[in-house]
Amino acid sequence: MKTSFTRINGSVTAPRGFRAAGVAAGLKASGKKDMALIVSDKPATVAAVFTTNQVKAAPVRLSMQHAKSGKACAIVVNSGNANACTGSSGMIHARAMACGVGRRFGCAENHVLVCSTGRIGVNLPVVKVEAGIKQLLGVLSPRGGAAAAQAIMTTDTFAKQVAVQFKAGGRTIRIGGIAKGAGMIQPNMATMLSFLTTDAAIPRAALQKALTHAVNHSFNRITVDGDTSTNDTVILLANGVAGAAPLAKFQEALDFVCLELAKMIVRDGEGVSKFVTLNVRGAASDRDAVIAARSVANSVLVKTSWCGGDPNWGRILDALGYSRAKVDEDLVDVVYNGVPAVRGGMATRTPLARLRKIVAQPTFTIDVHLHLGRGHCTMHTCDLTEKYVELNRGE
Amino acid sequence: MKTSFTRINGSVTAPRGFRAAGVAAGLKASGKKDMALIVSDKPATVAAVFTTNQVKAAPVRLSMQHAKSGKACAIVVNSGNANACTGSSGMIHARAMACGVGRRFGCAENHVLVCSTGRIGVNLPVVKVEAGIKQLLGVLSPRGGAAAAQAIMTTDTFAKQVAVQFKAGGRTIRIGGIAKGAGMIQPNMATMLSFLTTDAAIPRAALQKALTHAVNHSFNRITVDGDTSTNDTVILLANGVAGAAPLAKFQEALDFVCLELAKMIVRDGEGVSKFVTLNVRGAASDRDAVIAARSVANSVLVKTSWCGGDPNWGRILDALGYSRAKVDEDLVDVVYNGVPAVRGGMATRTPLARLRKIVAQPTFTIDVHLHLGRGHCTMHTCDLTEKYVELNRGE
Repeated sequence: MKTSFTRINGSVTAPRGFRAAGVAAGLKASGKKDMALIVSDKPATVAAVFTTNQVKAAPVRLSMQHAKSGKACAIVVNSGNANACTGSSGMIHARAMACGVGRRFGCAENHVLVCSTGRIGVNLPVVKVEAGIKQLLGVLSPRGGAAAAQAIMTTDTFAKQVAVQFKAGGRTIRIGGIAKGAGMIQPNMATMLSFLTTDAAIPRAALQKALTHAVNHSFNRITVDGDTSTNDTVILLANGVAGAAPLAKFQEALDFVCLELAKMIVRDGEGVSKFVTLNVRGAASDRDAVIAARSVANSVLVKTSWCGGDPNWGRILDALGYSRAKVDEDLVDVVYNGVPAVRGGMATRTPLARLRKIVAQPTFTIDVHLHLGRGHCTMHTCDLTEKYVELNRGE
Repeated sequence: MKTSFTRINGSVTAPRGFRAAGVAAGLKASGKKDMALIVSDKPATVAAVFTTNQVKAAPVRLSMQHAKSGKACAIVVNSGNANACTGSSGMIHARAMACGVGRRFGCAENHVLVCSTGRIGVNLPVVKVEAGIKQLLGVLSPRGGAAAAQAIMTTDTFAKQVAVQFKAGGRTIRIGGIAKGAGMIQPNMATMLSFLTTDAAIPRAALQKALTHAVNHSFNRITVDGDTSTNDTVILLANGVAGAAPLAKFQEALDFVCLELAKMIVRDGEGVSKFVTLNVRGAASDRDAVIAARSVANSVLVKTSWCGGDPNWGRILDALGYSRAKVDEDLVDVVYNGVPAVRGGMATRTPLARLRKIVAQPTFTIDVHLHLGRGHCTMHTCDLTEKYVELNRGE
């Protein structure tokens, strides 16, 4: 597929005018990096998307308020503690993070966005966090994107970074991003954090529209375990240093960055051994396609069958049937990597061994056609393994 | 709690006028019993509840038609093959089962109900099934309930049987039942089959109302893995041999039988190590209470934390928050076996060790109070274990 952009190295500090840092502030028992800071030297236009969970962590509620100002200079993040279900002290602690950065960086408190990820219901160790902020300010660098990507990780096994550039009227525009995922990952976001930067100049309304579109086709089209977190946040800062960008080109590049990060989240899901792309076509509507795809992608029985390399399409039909999407069993086709397993709701003559070979691979695609309309949805998901249970048992 | 009924030994053949049988017809590779038959010597009034899945197995569609006649003499069941997603041959095979029993037992085809459970998408081996029916008719017995309970098992580890009796105007009324469960178990039923018999004389409309009530407060209030099967069926036959029964007493006894069977299904869920009773109180409505309880009981992260004995109430708050039930974080209480863990959305001073001790037990109760209204729901559920994944991997 020909694209109008090029992938480049780096992430949030690839666009000009951004600096970042990641440090170990002692929030993680492991001693690993657990605080990150991303700053724009020039106040940036901000767009953001937050968790749909009714239970929202204090930093989410604070950042929602702050994003309303339309401008931001900094994003401060801690991992190891979600600052969720922490009552009024939670909000005081989130504000303290914003104040601490604003005071030292020299910007208004409400131009600082705050994010937290980690265990729910434990008070934030504010003294450590304050010291971490001081540390972060000391090591901010135009090459700090990688350290920031590491510092936001929780059970992630690798740092997630993407950057692209494209030409616009002789100028070079860049977009970069980092993300973390691993558990509590489901459509409509999860403890999934993603921070995106660009040096393009984009008016605020257009920026928000572009981000919403990109998120709907990336972070909202993945699921690991069906659990939507209290802390999900995606933030995009546009500082305008590189000048205006044509919106269509910008959208294409932004969509790519978000989708790449979203796919990395699925690949790095807790205990994941299979990466599955699920296309639902022919649904009565796009909304129905999403509902049907989520039902299949979140079915515990479908996910465990993938783990064992079992092409158990019966469980897929079962999950389609109990979804709220319109389904007529006699019309359903299911195809594994182009090989038909089900036509009109019944098994084809494809030998089971051939389907087993496909599902044994670490990556495969399942196409479901409902033959009811033109609704379509692509969902990226994974299997459910013994390892996932082991990682989440908590003992 | 004082009840107006007494628990007795036996199951579907405890009420007078019923006989049953269970045989090995060769549908299960293991050679275990895989066909069951329950008959009423006198045509019985029938009530039934079927799966809400849009993809319905052929026997479900056939039994839905047959139940409309209001009368039934026999229920024939096979395990080892679901006869689901088997196209037009599926319906022919289901009809053949009804015809085979009707012809030999001497009743109309539409007075025979048919159920299947097992793998989806594989044609029923009709020759074996036909021979199995012949065998079943040969061994029908008023002590055959236990054999029938064994024959309907799939991955169940024990046969599920309950019977009760109560007095009505000097006469003894009995209700008995068997069930199978294990996997694909979620509210609104699952590959969950249950067959109930009574010698009470109850008019059809009242019988259906009583069964619907009992199912809503038992089989529809359990979840193992959140997957609703294509084959769920609950059938109640009332042959009237013992005469009329007061409806209130009958309902109380029937509710008990259904709830006992439903709880056995959860206890015997695939790989289950914890049996959890979840009470949601103070919801805005009963409907909201059910939605909230299901969200918690089906959360993969909540279930895995139980498996590890981790009182991770943060995940419970998270699951409440992303449910579609109205939730105000600042009002939520969570209590483990009477010990408060969360008050008003925040951790209490209860030491974590005390909560750990509770969740380490094989059986415990969690009370969630939303403080928004008078909606209430009790859900019986279980943990998600490495063993569940291992059992369902399919390799």
